[in-house]
Amino acid sequence: MVNLTDIGERGKAASRFLTSANAEVRNRALAAIAAALRREQQAILRANAQDTAAAENGGMSAAFLDRLALTSQRIEEIAAAVEKVIMLPDPVGRVDGGHTLPNGLRLYKTKVPFGVVGMIYEARPNVTVDAAALCLKSGNVCMLRGSKEAIRSNIALVGVMRAAIAGVGLPEDCILLVGDTTREGAAAMMTLRGYLDLLIPRGGAGLIRSVVENATVPVIETGAGNCHTYVDSSADLQMAVKILENAKASRPSVCNACETLLIHCDMAADFLPLAKAALDRYAVEWRGCARSREILPGILEATEEDYATEYDDYILACRVVDSLEEALAHIARYSTGHSECIVTDSYAHAQAFTAGVDAAAVYVNASTRFTDGGCFGLGAEIGISTQKLHARGPMGLEALTTDKYLLFGEGQVRK
Amino acid sequence: MVNLTDIGERGKAASRFLTSANAEVRNRALAAIAAALRREQQAILRANAQDTAAAENGGMSAAFLDRLALTSQRIEEIAAAVEKVIMLPDPVGRVDGGHTLPNGLRLYKTKVPFGVVGMIYEARPNVTVDAAALCLKSGNVCMLRGSKEAIRSNIALVGVMRAAIAGVGLPEDCILLVGDTTREGAAAMMTLRGYLDLLIPRGGAGLIRSVVENATVPVIETGAGNCHTYVDSSADLQMAVKILENAKASRPSVCNACETLLIHCDMAADFLPLAKAALDRYAVEWRGCARSREILPGILEATEEDYATEYDDYILACRVVDSLEEALAHIARYSTGHSECIVTDSYAHAQAFTAGVDAAAVYVNASTRFTDGGCFGLGAEIGISTQKLHARGPMGLEALTTDKYLLFGEGQVRK
Repeated sequence: MVNLTDIGERGKAASRFLTSANAEVRNRALAAIAAALRREQQAILRANAQDTAAAENGGMSAAFLDRLALTSQRIEEIAAAVEKVIMLPDPVGRVDGGHTLPNGLRLYKTKVPFGVVGMIYEARPNVTVDAAALCLKSGNVCMLRGSKEAIRSNIALVGVMRAAIAGVGLPEDCILLVGDTTREGAAAMMTLRGYLDLLIPRGGAGLIRSVVENATVPVIETGAGNCHTYVDSSADLQMAVKILENAKASRPSVCNACETLLIHCDMAADFLPLAKAALDRYAVEWRGCARSREILPGILEATEEDYATEYDDYILACRVVDSLEEALAHIARYSTGHSECIVTDSYAHAQAFTAGVDAAAVYVNASTRFTDGGCFGLGAEIGISTQKLHARGPMGLEALTTDKYLLFGEGQVRK
Repeated sequence: MVNLTDIGERGKAASRFLTSANAEVRNRALAAIAAALRREQQAILRANAQDTAAAENGGMSAAFLDRLALTSQRIEEIAAAVEKVIMLPDPVGRVDGGHTLPNGLRLYKTKVPFGVVGMIYEARPNVTVDAAALCLKSGNVCMLRGSKEAIRSNIALVGVMRAAIAGVGLPEDCILLVGDTTREGAAAMMTLRGYLDLLIPRGGAGLIRSVVENATVPVIETGAGNCHTYVDSSADLQMAVKILENAKASRPSVCNACETLLIHCDMAADFLPLAKAALDRYAVEWRGCARSREILPGILEATEEDYATEYDDYILACRVVDSLEEALAHIARYSTGHSECIVTDSYAHAQAFTAGVDAAAVYVNASTRFTDGGCFGLGAEIGISTQKLHARGPMGLEALTTDKYLLFGEGQVRK
């Protein structure tokens, strides 16, 4: 049994300090991190080279290696991203409302840091810095647990960041790395009650499921995106092709990419060949219902499981529906509540779709690919929540704060 | 294994309808409930009389029976409370912000119902109606699971409410009762993923712990209140006695009552005898540290466990501290993060206490008993959250809503 209470105690102690640090101090620490990343880039690149060499020997895919690898330019981009976080408004201490009670007691609703925020994530070293920067900006200690393939990079990055913040007077333990990259290490984080105020898992469906089933600390589920594009009976077909192509093929590996096309039966014969031609340029594999296979005879048959799957790949499920209602029912059944789109020229159908779909982001005539903290104007993003509690959709700095009521009296007691 | 997927399906189907029902319809349903409760009160009282008779035979305490028992007057109060909910502003559909993206895509952040909200709670029939009314007002289907001692009352109340809302055109299944009052029934609710969008347990520490450990649906923890009153070196002693008396003895069974007194050593000799005299009128039992027992020789010794316990009773733990810092450290260690109070005349100490205490509500010179949705001006309360996720402190109607981003475009795709 892995025991993380020691690192938990260190996080709590650092949190008591960081919670009271003002924005000037926190921004100075971020600037020190950006400078140190640039200054220490050779050491970081050396550590990363060991990670990538091991991953290559281990036969990891090219896409995996691409996410893992750092270059001088990527470190510059990561440092620049930290500097962007400095420019964001301070989310801490905002007074969200308040009033004076009839008895004179003055009440203020304020925003405060969570305390200690845990992250479990994939082999992407940039997430290590992004997460640390967003937590620091919002006054939170971060406890980071990246995957084992990036451990040398993470040790180097966290070491550089800890030294940098110590240089401006913050406790090193404001940035914590869980060195144990086993499943047991992750499980110990999920149950670190009393030490972790929030846990944000970022990764595949398996990780999210494991966290949901095992966590006893508060969790925000992220990332599951089984997104649909519904082409309505009144859709502009050229617009629909453009939107589907962007939603499916511009970056299939991300959670806001389209996984299933729903097409109204009146449009299917005209639309499907156009869509197929557009997506053929990306070698997208289609899996369709019986009616779509009559129009596109060459494609595979879609199973129940296809409709339930987030491919994150150049694969598209397809289904012909008889009505908006049937499209809504399909989405209600298979959607993960991330991003859903209707392409339509009908005002009534746009209204019914936006009201009827239960998802974080509902689009009319635009690609689902916009569901992203940067696109939504949140400045930076710690993840995309697919749960309804606390934060839904892209989470910016505000999602890393909680409420605290302050009440100032002169001896008031309750009658 | 208890299977609740059938009731879950009914809830989801009703939710699709209720989510689109406007406030006029929802308020009409609430008015129908209030009228029906008054009209059907004899049937409700008969069912409740069976519950109370069984509880009496079962040897339940007077306090338990008092919470369980309904009278004509109490039903009138319950109906009046439903009518008050009608008057509250509609939390659904509020636009919480938004802007136009550089590419012309218009983004709106809106408030929508969760969907289906589950409640597990004690033998208090008034909670059955309160919870149903607040869920209905906020566009949520409720799935209620009261305890077995109130099952006849709950069947009667839910029957009356379901018939009432059907009379104004809402699906009966907007109000669901889980008839299984065993532990297995509760466990089945905690894992009803895909059907329950939120679960709010209201009850003792055992229930909350069980939910935290077993739930796979999103949960808001409520109610744990190990609250402290710290009497600082500069406190006005008369004010401090008044505040402590109110916080400890005005209603010891509730979560915002004081459980531990922390007293600065400079004031202990003067304050403790005054406080003891005031609380003697309520026969409060004291359990103190060694130094407090020198001043109050007759009292019991406080153990580690005493400081960690939420008595919910006429018992007070007490500890003499040397400084504000020692008080803050004690609170950081034992507090459940509900409500904490400092009595002081020092501006600096008031500032340090409000900044340093990690709790939903932090008071200067006022009783912790004010932590309550009604007192805070939220209109009505579904519970008091002691977690940091989503809602912290008293939860009003807004806590029963989540976000939905709507995006309206003209063919925008992501570059």
